[in-house]
Amino acid sequence: MTASTPASHAFDRAIALTAAGANLFKGNVDDSFQNMVGPFGGVTAATLLNGALQHPERIGEPISLTINFAGPVQLGAFELEAIPLRTNRSTQHWLLLQRQDGEVVTSGTAFFATRRETWSEQQHDMPTAPPADSLPRLVRGERNWFRNYDFRYVSGLFDPSRGDGNPEDAHSETLLWTRDNPPRPLDFASLTALGDVFAPRIFHRRQRFTPAGTVSLTHYFHADTEQLARAGDRHLLGQAHATRMHNNYSDQVAHLWSDDGQLLLTTTQVAYFKE
Amino acid sequence: MTASTPASHAFDRAIALTAAGANLFKGNVDDSFQNMVGPFGGVTAATLLNGALQHPERIGEPISLTINFAGPVQLGAFELEAIPLRTNRSTQHWLLLQRQDGEVVTSGTAFFATRRETWSEQQHDMPTAPPADSLPRLVRGERNWFRNYDFRYVSGLFDPSRGDGNPEDAHSETLLWTRDNPPRPLDFASLTALGDVFAPRIFHRRQRFTPAGTVSLTHYFHADTEQLARAGDRHLLGQAHATRMHNNYSDQVAHLWSDDGQLLLTTTQVAYFKE
Repeated sequence: MTASTPASHAFDRAIALTAAGANLFKGNVDDSFQNMVGPFGGVTAATLLNGALQHPERIGEPISLTINFAGPVQLGAFELEAIPLRTNRSTQHWLLLQRQDGEVVTSGTAFFATRRETWSEQQHDMPTAPPADSLPRLVRGERNWFRNYDFRYVSGLFDPSRGDGNPEDAHSETLLWTRDNPPRPLDFASLTALGDVFAPRIFHRRQRFTPAGTVSLTHYFHADTEQLARAGDRHLLGQAHATRMHNNYSDQVAHLWSDDGQLLLTTTQVAYFKE
Repeated sequence: MTASTPASHAFDRAIALTAAGANLFKGNVDDSFQNMVGPFGGVTAATLLNGALQHPERIGEPISLTINFAGPVQLGAFELEAIPLRTNRSTQHWLLLQRQDGEVVTSGTAFFATRRETWSEQQHDMPTAPPADSLPRLVRGERNWFRNYDFRYVSGLFDPSRGDGNPEDAHSETLLWTRDNPPRPLDFASLTALGDVFAPRIFHRRQRFTPAGTVSLTHYFHADTEQLARAGDRHLLGQAHATRMHNNYSDQVAHLWSDDGQLLLTTTQVAYFKE
Protein backbone atom coordinates (compact mmCIF):
# COMPACT_ATOMS: atom_id res chain seq x y z
CA MET A 1 0.00 0.00 0.00
CA THR A 2 2.88 2.42 0.64
CA ALA A 3 3.49 4.34 -2.57
CA SER A 4 6.63 6.11 -1.44
CA THR A 5 9.47 5.78 1.01
CA PRO A 6 9.48 8.43 3.75
CA ALA A 7 12.61 10.14 2.46
CA SER A 8 10.92 10.97 -0.82
CA HIS A 9 7.60 12.14 0.66
CA ALA A 10 6.66 15.82 0.51
CA PHE A 11 5.77 15.69 4.20
CA ASP A 12 9.24 14.49 5.19
CA ARG A 13 10.87 17.17 3.07
CA ALA A 14 8.62 19.82 4.67
CA ILE A 15 9.51 18.94 8.27
CA ALA A 16 13.23 18.24 7.63
CA LEU A 17 15.69 19.85 10.03
CA THR A 18 19.47 20.23 10.02
CA ALA A 19 21.37 20.37 13.31
CA ALA A 20 22.95 23.82 13.67
CA GLY A 21 24.35 23.92 17.21
CA ALA A 22 23.30 23.20 20.78
CA ASN A 23 19.45 23.08 20.89
CA LEU A 24 19.37 24.64 17.42
CA PHE A 25 18.13 23.44 14.04
CA LYS A 26 17.72 25.05 10.64
CA GLY A 27 15.01 24.36 8.10
CA ASN A 28 13.30 25.76 5.05
CA VAL A 29 9.66 26.45 4.21
CA ASP A 30 8.77 25.68 0.60
CA ASP A 31 5.37 26.14 -1.03
CA SER A 32 4.33 22.47 -1.06
CA PHE A 33 2.01 22.87 1.94
CA GLN A 34 1.02 26.49 1.32
CA ASN A 35 -2.33 27.54 2.80
CA MET A 36 -4.10 30.93 2.86
CA VAL A 37 -1.37 32.69 4.87
CA GLY A 38 1.85 30.67 5.08
CA PRO A 39 2.08 26.88 5.26
CA PHE A 40 -0.65 24.58 6.64
CA GLY A 41 -0.37 24.89 10.44
CA GLY A 42 -0.29 21.13 10.93
CA VAL A 43 3.03 20.93 9.09
CA THR A 44 4.42 23.82 11.13
CA ALA A 45 3.35 22.00 14.31
CA ALA A 46 4.99 18.78 13.06
CA THR A 47 8.18 20.69 12.27
CA LEU A 48 8.39 22.04 15.82
CA LEU A 49 7.70 18.61 17.30
CA ASN A 50 10.43 17.26 15.03
CA GLY A 51 12.91 19.52 16.82
CA ALA A 52 12.33 17.54 20.02
CA LEU A 53 12.13 14.19 18.17
CA GLN A 54 15.51 14.81 16.48
CA HIS A 55 17.22 16.22 19.57
CA PRO A 56 20.12 14.03 20.82
CA GLU A 57 18.97 14.41 24.46
CA ARG A 58 15.36 13.39 23.82
CA ILE A 59 13.86 10.65 26.00
CA GLY A 60 10.54 8.88 25.57
CA GLU A 61 7.70 9.66 23.19
CA PRO A 62 5.35 12.64 22.82
CA ILE A 63 2.43 12.77 25.26
CA SER A 64 1.34 16.39 24.74
CA LEU A 65 2.16 19.26 22.41
CA THR A 66 0.99 22.86 22.32
CA ILE A 67 1.78 25.06 19.33
CA ASN A 68 1.09 28.81 19.17
CA PHE A 69 0.96 30.49 15.77
CA ALA A 70 2.43 33.88 16.67
CA GLY A 71 2.85 35.39 13.22
CA PRO A 72 2.84 34.49 9.51
CA VAL A 73 5.44 31.89 8.51
CA GLN A 74 7.17 33.07 5.33
CA LEU A 75 8.62 30.94 2.57
CA GLY A 76 12.35 30.43 3.10
CA ALA A 77 14.75 29.79 5.94
CA PHE A 78 13.92 29.44 9.63
CA GLU A 79 15.72 28.60 12.86
CA LEU A 80 14.21 26.25 15.42
CA GLU A 81 15.32 26.31 19.03
CA ALA A 82 14.41 23.08 20.87
CA ILE A 83 15.27 23.37 24.55
CA PRO A 84 14.86 20.52 27.04
CA LEU A 85 13.59 22.73 29.90
CA ARG A 86 13.54 19.91 32.40
CA THR A 87 14.41 16.24 32.22
CA ASN A 88 13.21 13.91 34.96
CA ARG A 89 13.80 10.16 35.18
CA SER A 90 11.16 9.16 32.63
CA THR A 91 9.66 12.51 31.56
CA GLN A 92 10.90 15.57 29.69
CA HIS A 93 9.52 19.07 29.11
CA TRP A 94 10.40 21.02 25.96
CA LEU A 95 10.33 24.62 24.79
CA LEU A 96 10.13 25.05 21.00
CA LEU A 97 10.69 28.39 19.24
CA GLN A 98 10.65 28.90 15.48
CA ARG A 99 12.20 32.18 14.28
CA GLN A 100 12.50 33.90 10.93
CA ASP A 101 14.75 36.97 10.62
CA GLY A 102 15.21 36.86 14.40
CA GLU A 103 11.49 37.14 15.18
CA VAL A 104 9.40 34.38 16.81
CA VAL A 105 6.82 33.13 14.31
CA THR A 106 5.74 29.97 16.19
CA SER A 107 6.17 28.89 19.81
CA GLY A 108 5.42 25.65 21.54
CA THR A 109 5.85 23.35 24.48
CA ALA A 110 5.95 19.57 24.46
CA PHE A 111 5.90 16.85 27.07
CA PHE A 112 7.59 13.51 26.39
CA ALA A 113 7.61 10.39 28.56
CA THR A 114 8.53 6.75 28.67
CA ARG A 115 5.31 4.78 29.18
CA ARG A 116 4.84 1.54 31.13
CA GLU A 117 1.95 -0.86 30.80
CA THR A 118 -0.95 0.05 33.13
CA TRP A 119 -4.66 -0.51 33.56
CA SER A 120 -6.05 1.12 30.41
CA GLU A 121 -9.45 1.92 28.93
CA GLN A 122 -10.81 3.90 26.03
CA GLN A 123 -13.87 5.93 27.04
CA HIS A 124 -14.63 7.62 23.72
CA ASP A 125 -15.62 5.07 21.07
CA MET A 126 -15.11 5.67 17.38
CA PRO A 127 -18.30 6.99 15.75
CA THR A 128 -20.02 4.77 13.21
CA ALA A 129 -18.92 5.58 9.67
CA PRO A 130 -18.94 3.84 6.30
CA PRO A 131 -15.51 2.53 5.26
CA ALA A 132 -13.16 5.11 3.75
CA ASP A 133 -12.91 3.13 0.51
CA SER A 134 -16.69 3.40 0.02
CA LEU A 135 -16.57 7.21 -0.04
CA PRO A 136 -15.30 9.49 -2.80
CA ARG A 137 -12.06 11.38 -2.31
CA LEU A 138 -12.62 15.12 -2.07
CA VAL A 139 -10.91 16.82 -4.98
CA ARG A 140 -10.14 20.48 -4.44
CA GLY A 141 -7.27 22.56 -5.73
CA GLU A 142 -7.57 25.91 -3.93
CA ARG A 143 -4.59 25.33 -1.64
CA ASN A 144 -1.33 23.52 -2.21
CA TRP A 145 -1.54 21.52 1.01
CA PHE A 146 -4.82 19.83 -0.03
CA ARG A 147 -2.81 17.78 -2.58
CA ASN A 148 -0.83 16.16 0.22
CA TYR A 149 -3.93 14.79 1.98
CA ASP A 150 -6.69 12.38 1.14
CA PHE A 151 -10.05 13.52 2.58
CA ARG A 152 -13.23 11.44 2.49
CA TYR A 153 -16.09 13.25 4.17
CA VAL A 154 -18.75 11.28 6.01
CA SER A 155 -20.59 14.47 7.07
CA GLY A 156 -20.00 18.15 7.74
CA LEU A 157 -18.36 19.06 4.44
CA PHE A 158 -17.59 22.74 4.03
CA ASP A 159 -19.12 23.67 0.70
CA PRO A 160 -20.00 27.35 0.28
CA SER A 161 -21.87 26.60 -2.96
CA ARG A 162 -24.65 25.07 -0.86
CA GLY A 163 -25.43 28.53 0.60
CA ASP A 164 -25.96 29.82 4.14
CA GLY A 165 -28.87 28.69 6.25
CA ASN A 166 -29.08 25.11 5.02
CA PRO A 167 -30.57 23.18 7.98
CA GLU A 168 -27.90 20.50 7.52
CA ASP A 169 -25.32 23.11 8.48
CA ALA A 170 -26.88 24.22 11.75
CA HIS A 171 -24.05 22.54 13.63
CA SER A 172 -20.27 22.75 13.72
CA GLU A 173 -19.44 19.05 13.41
CA THR A 174 -17.36 17.27 10.79
CA LEU A 175 -16.73 13.54 10.42
CA LEU A 176 -14.15 12.48 7.84
CA TRP A 177 -11.54 9.90 6.91
CA THR A 178 -8.10 11.30 6.18
CA ARG A 179 -4.53 10.22 5.53
CA ASP A 180 -1.40 11.48 3.81
CA ASN A 181 -1.37 11.53 0.03
CA PRO A 182 0.43 9.55 -1.23
CA PRO A 183 -0.03 7.18 1.73
CA ARG A 184 2.77 7.31 4.30
CA PRO A 185 3.18 5.14 7.43
CA LEU A 186 1.79 7.02 10.42
CA ASP A 187 4.23 8.45 12.98
CA PHE A 188 4.10 11.17 15.63
CA ALA A 189 4.98 13.92 13.13
CA SER A 190 2.33 12.97 10.57
CA LEU A 191 -0.30 12.42 13.29
CA THR A 192 0.52 15.92 14.58
CA ALA A 193 -0.22 17.38 11.15
CA LEU A 194 -3.34 15.24 10.62
CA GLY A 195 -4.72 16.62 13.88
CA ASP A 196 -4.97 20.05 12.25
CA VAL A 197 -6.72 19.13 8.99
CA PHE A 198 -10.19 20.28 10.05
CA ALA A 199 -11.14 23.61 8.48
CA PRO A 200 -12.11 26.41 10.89
CA ARG A 201 -15.42 25.45 12.53
CA ILE A 202 -16.87 28.85 11.61
CA PHE A 203 -16.58 27.86 7.92
CA HIS A 204 -18.66 24.75 8.54
CA ARG A 205 -21.20 26.39 10.76
CA ARG A 206 -21.92 29.26 8.37
CA GLN A 207 -20.95 27.61 5.08
CA ARG A 208 -18.98 30.63 3.94
CA PHE A 209 -15.43 31.88 4.06
CA THR A 210 -14.29 34.51 6.50
CA PRO A 211 -10.71 35.43 7.44
CA ALA A 212 -9.82 32.77 10.01
CA GLY A 213 -6.84 30.87 11.35
CA THR A 214 -5.65 28.76 14.25
CA VAL A 215 -3.80 30.69 16.96
CA SER A 216 -3.07 27.81 19.34
CA LEU A 217 -3.48 24.05 19.22
CA THR A 218 -2.92 21.28 21.75
CA HIS A 219 -2.50 17.59 21.00
CA TYR A 220 -2.71 14.70 23.48
CA PHE A 221 -1.14 11.57 22.01
CA HIS A 222 -2.85 8.44 23.29
CA ALA A 223 -0.84 6.07 21.11
CA ASP A 224 2.72 4.88 21.33
CA THR A 225 5.06 4.03 18.44
CA GLU A 226 3.77 0.47 18.25
CA GLN A 227 0.11 1.56 17.95
CA LEU A 228 1.01 4.11 15.29
CA ALA A 229 2.81 1.38 13.36
CA ARG A 230 -0.33 -0.76 13.53
CA ALA A 231 -2.36 2.11 12.03
CA GLY A 232 0.01 1.89 9.06
CA ASP A 233 -0.75 4.15 6.13
CA ARG A 234 -4.51 3.60 6.24
CA HIS A 235 -7.12 6.31 6.78
CA LEU A 236 -7.83 7.77 10.24
CA LEU A 237 -11.34 8.78 11.24
CA GLY A 238 -11.55 12.35 12.51
CA GLN A 239 -14.41 14.08 14.30
CA ALA A 240 -14.40 17.80 15.18
CA HIS A 241 -16.85 20.23 16.72
CA ALA A 242 -16.89 23.68 18.33
CA THR A 243 -18.23 24.49 21.78
CA ARG A 244 -18.43 28.28 21.49
CA MET A 245 -17.73 30.97 18.91
CA HIS A 246 -17.56 34.40 20.53
CA ASN A 247 -16.14 37.77 19.49
CA ASN A 248 -13.31 36.75 17.12
CA TYR A 249 -12.43 33.38 18.67
CA SER A 250 -13.80 29.85 18.30
CA ASP A 251 -12.60 26.67 19.88
CA GLN A 252 -12.51 23.18 18.38
CA VAL A 253 -12.48 19.80 20.13
CA ALA A 254 -11.49 16.88 17.90
CA HIS A 255 -10.45 13.23 17.98
CA LEU A 256 -8.66 10.92 15.56
CA TRP A 257 -9.08 7.12 15.56
CA SER A 258 -7.22 4.44 13.62
CA ASP A 259 -9.53 2.38 11.41
CA ASP A 260 -9.67 -0.39 14.01
CA GLY A 261 -11.24 2.03 16.52
CA GLN A 262 -8.24 2.98 18.66
CA LEU A 263 -8.31 6.62 19.79
CA LEU A 264 -4.90 7.96 18.79
CA LEU A 265 -5.24 11.70 19.39
CA THR A 266 -7.39 14.16 21.33
CA THR A 267 -6.81 17.64 20.00
CA THR A 268 -8.18 21.09 20.73
CA GLN A 269 -7.53 24.45 19.20
CA VAL A 270 -8.63 28.04 19.30
CA ALA A 271 -9.00 29.90 16.02
CA TYR A 272 -9.40 33.56 15.16
CA PHE A 273 -12.27 34.60 12.89
CA LYS A 274 -13.09 38.04 11.63
CA GLU A 275 -16.81 38.64 11.36
CA MET B 1 -22.78 37.84 48.92
CA THR B 2 -19.09 38.66 48.87
CA ALA B 3 -17.63 37.72 52.22
CA SER B 4 -14.20 39.18 51.65
CA THR B 5 -12.43 41.81 49.59
CA PRO B 6 -9.98 40.42 47.04
CA ALA B 7 -6.91 41.74 48.89
CA SER B 8 -7.74 39.64 51.93
CA HIS B 9 -8.65 36.45 50.06
CA ALA B 10 -6.34 33.42 50.31
CA PHE B 11 -6.45 33.07 46.52
CA ASP B 12 -5.15 36.59 45.96
CA ARG B 13 -2.36 36.07 48.47
CA ALA B 14 -1.42 32.79 46.75
CA ILE B 15 -1.07 34.28 43.26
CA ALA B 16 0.53 37.59 44.37
CA LEU B 17 3.64 38.68 42.46
CA THR B 18 6.21 41.41 43.03
CA ALA B 19 7.96 43.04 40.06
CA ALA B 20 11.66 42.16 40.16
CA GLY B 21 13.08 43.47 36.87
CA ALA B 22 12.38 43.31 33.14
CA ASN B 23 9.99 40.39 32.49
CA LEU B 24 10.67 39.11 36.01
CA PHE B 25 8.50 38.65 39.09
CA LYS B 26 9.00 37.10 42.50
CA GLY B 27 6.48 35.23 44.57
CA ASN B 28 6.11 32.82 47.43
CA VAL B 29 4.33 29.47 47.82
CA ASP B 30 2.67 29.01 51.20
CA ASP B 31 0.75 25.95 52.36
CA SER B 32 -2.76 27.41 51.99
CA PHE B 33 -3.42 25.53 48.70
CA GLN B 34 -1.27 22.49 49.44
CA ASN B 35 -2.27 19.32 47.57
CA MET B 36 -0.67 15.84 47.51
CA VAL B 37 2.63 17.04 46.02
CA GLY B 38 3.03 20.82 46.11
CA PRO B 39 0.24 23.35 45.72
CA PHE B 40 -3.03 22.73 43.82
CA GLY B 41 -2.07 23.01 40.12
CA GLY B 42 -4.90 25.44 39.39
CA VAL B 43 -3.31 28.03 41.66
CA THR B 44 0.08 27.48 40.05
CA ALA B 45 -1.53 27.99 36.62
CA ALA B 46 -3.25 31.16 37.87
CA THR B 47 0.07 32.43 39.25
CA LEU B 48 1.76 32.01 35.85
CA LEU B 49 -1.14 33.69 34.06
CA ASN B 50 -0.87 36.51 36.60
CA GLY B 51 2.67 37.17 35.33
CA ALA B 52 1.21 38.16 31.95
CA LEU B 53 -1.79 39.95 33.52
CA GLN B 54 0.49 42.09 35.71
CA HIS B 55 3.09 42.78 33.01
CA PRO B 56 3.29 46.48 32.02
CA GLU B 57 3.39 45.60 28.29
CA ARG B 58 0.34 43.34 28.33
CA ILE B 59 -2.40 44.03 25.79
CA GLY B 60 -5.88 42.48 25.62
CA GLU B 61 -7.32 39.61 27.62
CA PRO B 62 -6.45 35.91 27.87
CA ILE B 63 -7.76 33.71 25.04
CA SER B 64 -5.66 30.59 25.65
CA LEU B 65 -3.25 29.30 28.28
CA THR B 66 -1.16 26.14 28.45
CA ILE B 67 0.62 25.19 31.65
CA ASN B 68 3.12 22.32 31.98
CA PHE B 69 3.87 20.96 35.43
CA ALA B 70 7.54 20.09 34.99
CA GLY B 71 8.48 19.25 38.56
CA PRO B 72 7.26 19.54 42.15
CA VAL B 73 6.65 23.12 43.34
CA GLN B 74 8.17 23.51 46.80
CA LEU B 75 6.99 25.77 49.60
CA GLY B 76 8.92 29.05 49.56
CA ALA B 77 10.28 31.53 47.05
CA PHE B 78 10.02 31.35 43.26
CA GLU B 79 10.92 33.49 40.28
CA LEU B 80 8.52 33.93 37.36
CA GLU B 81 9.76 35.02 33.97
CA ALA B 82 6.93 36.42 31.78
CA ILE B 83 8.21 37.18 28.30
CA PRO B 84 6.08 38.78 25.58
CA LEU B 85 7.45 36.61 22.73
CA ARG B 86 5.56 38.49 20.06
CA THR B 87 3.19 41.44 20.12
CA ASN B 88 1.00 42.12 17.09
CA ARG B 89 -1.53 44.92 16.70
CA SER B 90 -4.27 43.30 18.76
CA THR B 91 -2.70 39.98 19.83
CA GLN B 92 0.19 38.93 22.07
CA HIS B 93 2.00 35.64 22.68
CA TRP B 94 3.63 34.92 26.04
CA LEU B 95 6.21 32.55 27.45
CA LEU B 96 5.90 31.86 31.19
CA LEU B 97 8.60 30.11 33.24
CA GLN B 98 8.45 29.50 36.99
CA ARG B 99 11.77 28.63 38.62
CA GLN B 100 12.83 27.56 42.09
CA ASP B 101 16.54 27.41 42.92
CA GLY B 102 17.29 28.10 39.25
CA GLU B 103 15.38 25.07 37.98
CA VAL B 104 12.18 25.25 35.87
CA VAL B 105 9.28 23.82 37.89
CA THR B 106 6.43 25.06 35.66
CA SER B 107 6.36 26.30 32.07
CA GLY B 108 3.59 27.83 30.04
CA THR B 109 2.48 29.81 27.03
CA ALA B 110 -0.42 32.22 26.80
CA PHE B 111 -2.22 34.04 24.03
CA PHE B 112 -3.91 37.38 24.71
CA ALA B 113 -6.05 39.46 22.35
CA THR B 114 -8.33 42.45 22.12
CA ARG B 115 -11.74 41.17 21.02
CA ARG B 116 -14.26 42.94 18.81
CA GLU B 117 -17.95 42.16 18.58
CA THR B 118 -18.66 39.48 15.92
CA TRP B 119 -21.28 36.93 14.94
CA SER B 120 -21.29 34.61 17.95
CA GLU B 121 -22.93 31.37 18.99
CA GLN B 122 -22.62 28.86 21.80
CA GLN B 123 -22.74 25.29 20.51
CA HIS B 124 -22.34 23.43 23.79
CA ASP B 125 -25.32 24.04 26.09
CA MET B 126 -25.07 23.80 29.84
CA PRO B 127 -26.20 20.38 31.10
CA THR B 128 -29.33 20.23 33.20
CA ALA B 129 -28.54 20.34 36.91
CA PRO B 130 -30.40 21.15 40.12
CA PRO B 131 -29.50 24.59 41.55
CA ALA B 132 -26.27 24.74 43.55
CA ASP B 133 -28.12 25.93 46.65
CA SER B 134 -30.27 22.76 46.63
CA LEU B 135 -27.21 20.51 46.95
CA PRO B 136 -25.05 19.90 50.03
CA ARG B 137 -21.56 21.30 50.13
CA LEU B 138 -18.93 18.56 50.07
CA VAL B 139 -16.97 18.66 53.31
CA ARG B 140 -13.55 17.06 53.15
CA GLY B 141 -10.39 17.91 54.97
CA GLU B 142 -7.69 15.75 53.36
CA ARG B 143 -6.02 18.59 51.49
CA ASN B 144 -5.53 22.24 52.39
CA TRP B 145 -6.77 23.53 49.03
CA PHE B 146 -10.23 21.93 49.48
CA ARG B 147 -10.98 24.57 52.15
CA ASN B 148 -10.65 27.33 49.56
CA TYR B 149 -13.34 25.88 47.29
CA ASP B 150 -17.04 25.14 47.56
CA PHE B 151 -17.96 21.89 45.74
CA ARG B 152 -21.52 20.68 45.23
CA TYR B 153 -21.59 17.45 43.28
CA VAL B 154 -24.47 16.69 40.94
CA SER B 155 -22.95 13.37 39.85
CA GLY B 156 -19.61 11.61 39.53
CA LEU B 157 -18.37 12.10 43.09
CA PHE B 158 -15.09 10.42 43.87
CA ASP B 159 -15.76 8.43 47.01
CA PRO B 160 -13.46 5.43 47.56
CA SER B 161 -15.63 4.21 50.46
CA ARG B 162 -18.22 3.13 47.88
CA GLY B 163 -15.79 0.47 46.59
CA ASP B 164 -14.59 -0.53 43.15
CA GLY B 165 -16.95 -1.99 40.59
CA ASN B 166 -20.04 0.02 41.48
CA PRO B 167 -22.03 0.22 38.23
CA GLU B 168 -22.58 3.94 38.82
CA ASP B 169 -18.84 4.42 38.42
CA ALA B 170 -18.46 2.75 35.06
CA HIS B 171 -17.78 6.12 33.46
CA SER B 172 -15.33 8.97 33.91
CA GLU B 173 -17.77 11.89 34.07
CA THR B 174 -18.27 14.42 36.84
CA LEU B 175 -20.87 17.21 37.05
CA LEU B 176 -20.50 19.71 39.88
CA TRP B 177 -21.08 23.27 41.00
CA THR B 178 -18.02 25.05 42.30
CA ARG B 179 -16.77 28.47 43.38
CA ASP B 180 -14.16 30.02 45.60
CA ASN B 181 -14.63 29.74 49.34
CA PRO B 182 -15.26 32.29 50.71
CA PRO B 183 -16.99 33.59 47.57
CA ARG B 184 -14.84 35.91 45.43
CA PRO B 185 -15.83 37.78 42.24
CA LEU B 186 -14.76 35.74 39.22
CA ASP B 187 -11.82 36.95 37.15
CA PHE B 188 -9.38 35.34 34.70
CA ALA B 189 -7.05 34.17 37.46
CA SER B 190 -9.75 32.51 39.55
CA LEU B 191 -11.39 30.96 36.46
CA THR B 192 -7.97 29.53 35.55
CA ALA B 193 -7.77 27.82 38.92
CA LEU B 194 -11.40 26.65 38.86
CA GLY B 195 -10.69 24.95 35.53
CA ASP B 196 -8.39 22.53 37.33
CA VAL B 197 -10.63 21.50 40.25
CA PHE B 198 -11.67 18.15 38.80
CA ALA B 199 -9.87 15.23 40.44
CA PRO B 200 -7.92 12.91 38.12
CA ARG B 201 -10.44 11.02 35.96
CA ILE B 202 -8.78 7.72 36.90
CA PHE B 203 -9.91 8.30 40.53
CA HIS B 204 -13.52 8.65 39.41
CA ARG B 205 -13.46 5.79 36.97
CA ARG B 206 -11.98 3.30 39.42
CA GLN B 207 -13.15 4.85 42.69
CA ARG B 208 -9.76 4.44 44.30
CA PHE B 209 -6.61 6.46 44.77
CA THR B 210 -3.52 5.90 42.68
CA PRO B 211 -0.51 8.18 42.36
CA ALA B 212 -1.68 10.71 39.75
CA GLY B 213 -1.17 14.30 38.72
CA THR B 214 -1.69 16.75 35.88
CA VAL B 215 1.32 17.18 33.61
CA SER B 216 -0.15 19.70 31.15
CA LEU B 217 -3.37 21.71 30.96
CA THR B 218 -4.83 24.02 28.34
CA HIS B 219 -7.59 26.57 28.89
CA TYR B 220 -9.62 28.37 26.21
CA PHE B 221 -11.32 31.43 27.68
CA HIS B 222 -14.64 32.11 25.95
CA ALA B 223 -15.60 35.00 28.21
CA ASP B 224 -14.33 38.54 28.43
CA THR B 225 -14.00 40.70 31.56
CA GLU B 226 -17.59 41.87 31.32
CA GLN B 227 -18.99 38.31 31.16
CA LEU B 228 -16.83 37.26 34.10
CA ALA B 229 -18.15 40.23 36.06
CA ARG B 230 -21.70 39.09 35.30
CA ALA B 231 -20.90 35.63 36.70
CA GLY B 232 -20.06 37.41 39.95
CA ASP B 233 -19.18 35.24 42.90
CA ARG B 234 -21.86 32.63 42.21
CA HIS B 235 -21.23 28.94 41.48
CA LEU B 236 -20.02 27.72 38.08
CA LEU B 237 -21.22 24.42 36.67
CA GLY B 238 -18.36 22.14 35.63
CA GLN B 239 -18.48 18.95 33.59
CA ALA B 240 -15.44 16.74 32.96
CA HIS B 241 -14.79 13.39 31.26
CA ALA B 242 -11.89 11.36 29.90
CA THR B 243 -11.59 10.04 26.35
CA ARG B 244 -8.78 7.53 26.88
CA MET B 245 -6.61 6.23 29.72
CA HIS B 246 -3.61 4.38 28.38
CA ASN B 247 -0.25 3.32 29.84
CA ASN B 248 0.33 6.01 32.50
CA TYR B 249 -1.56 8.89 30.87
CA SER B 250 -5.20 9.95 30.80
CA ASP B 251 -6.74 12.99 29.17
CA GLN B 252 -9.63 15.11 30.44
CA VAL B 253 -12.01 17.33 28.48
CA ALA B 254 -14.02 19.76 30.62
CA HIS B 255 -16.24 22.83 30.45
CA LEU B 256 -17.31 25.50 32.93
CA TRP B 257 -20.53 27.50 32.61
CA SER B 258 -21.79 30.49 34.60
CA ASP B 259 -25.12 29.80 36.31
CA ASP B 260 -27.00 31.60 33.52
CA GLY B 261 -25.71 29.04 31.00
CA GLN B 262 -22.82 30.94 29.37
CA LEU B 263 -19.86 28.71 28.50
CA LEU B 264 -16.89 30.49 30.07
CA LEU B 265 -14.09 27.96 29.70
CA THR B 266 -13.19 24.89 27.63
CA THR B 267 -10.31 23.09 29.27
CA THR B 268 -8.32 19.94 28.59
CA GLN B 269 -5.52 18.27 30.43
CA VAL B 270 -3.34 15.20 30.41
CA ALA B 271 -2.58 13.53 33.73
CA TYR B 272 -0.09 10.91 34.77
CA PHE B 273 -1.32 7.87 36.69
CA LYS B 274 0.71 5.00 38.06
CA GLU B 275 -1.12 1.71 37.84
